[in-house]
Amino acid sequence: MTQQQIMLKSSLDAWYTYIGRADKLFQSFSDEELLKEVAPDRNSAAYLLGHLAAVHDGFFPMYGLGEKLYPQLEEVFIKNPDKSGLPKPSVAELRKAWTEVNSKLAEHFNKYTVDQWLEKHTAVSAEDFQKEPHRNKLNVLLNRTNHLANHYGQLLFLKK
Amino acid sequence: MTQQQIMLKSSLDAWYTYIGRADKLFQSFSDEELLKEVAPDRNSAAYLLGHLAAVHDGFFPMYGLGEKLYPQLEEVFIKNPDKSGLPKPSVAELRKAWTEVNSKLAEHFNKYTVDQWLEKHTAVSAEDFQKEPHRNKLNVLLNRTNHLANHYGQLLFLKK
Repeated sequence: MTQQQIMLKSSLDAWYTYIGRADKLFQSFSDEELLKEVAPDRNSAAYLLGHLAAVHDGFFPMYGLGEKLYPQLEEVFIKNPDKSGLPKPSVAELRKAWTEVNSKLAEHFNKYTVDQWLEKHTAVSAEDFQKEPHRNKLNVLLNRTNHLANHYGQLLFLKK
Repeated sequence: MTQQQIMLKSSLDAWYTYIGRADKLFQSFSDEELLKEVAPDRNSAAYLLGHLAAVHDGFFPMYGLGEKLYPQLEEVFIKNPDKSGLPKPSVAELRKAWTEVNSKLAEHFNKYTVDQWLEKHTAVSAEDFQKEPHRNKLNVLLNRTNHLANHYGQLLFLKK
């Protein structure tokens, strides 16, 4: 293994660790439980499920892999808060989106070479990328892993 | 910059981002506020402050940098839960430990070369490291960043 491959493995391991933990946690709750707030006056677990699915769905356009699978989630779960009053998909639909987005992403992630991980993502211009080569796909993965860990910590509060 | 340096930069940026966010959040609370639970029947923010200081203090022995600065925190903030009944240091002492540990760590982190980041840490044997070269210092940093993000998400609940 090259140094780059060793470094990449740590980043991917961290992503899959938190995806696995969050997945197990979501599965441990009934649909009814997921509709509860994780703490008083805070987001419901179902909102966080939709939020994480929507944010992870953003990898597809950001990595140049095509359109989002569930573009309709963005308005409700990224641009607006839980108590927006906007109609929400059912918990079953959110579970499906979460699972499908993450498993489709894994198909791509597992095939990427180091060089591909270090390519620029679509939200940075070629000019800026010249000056800031760390604004690559791997950097987005690290940030999204921390974002996931952040909300995972909150979701743990729903456990009895 | 080499590919390794680019990859390293992303990992360090993520660490310092969450250290900065947590630091700002801790500073925004009075000592009295920090003694409150972040959610009903959950850890107090002061416990999480002590916990994070204690866990980060663990970098020193794990990286072969010498003893912990605050070894006495381990018993209260890692091995035991918030409601252990064990006497706890004052919030002022915890704030000092948090700041000192993180700033001493930064002195080391900022000097490490890529090769040093990819050296084994002290909790893995030379034999296992041969087979699993990703069990290096950088891997510990990534895991600790996610751990920090996890608790940061919880600490946010203390905000009004």
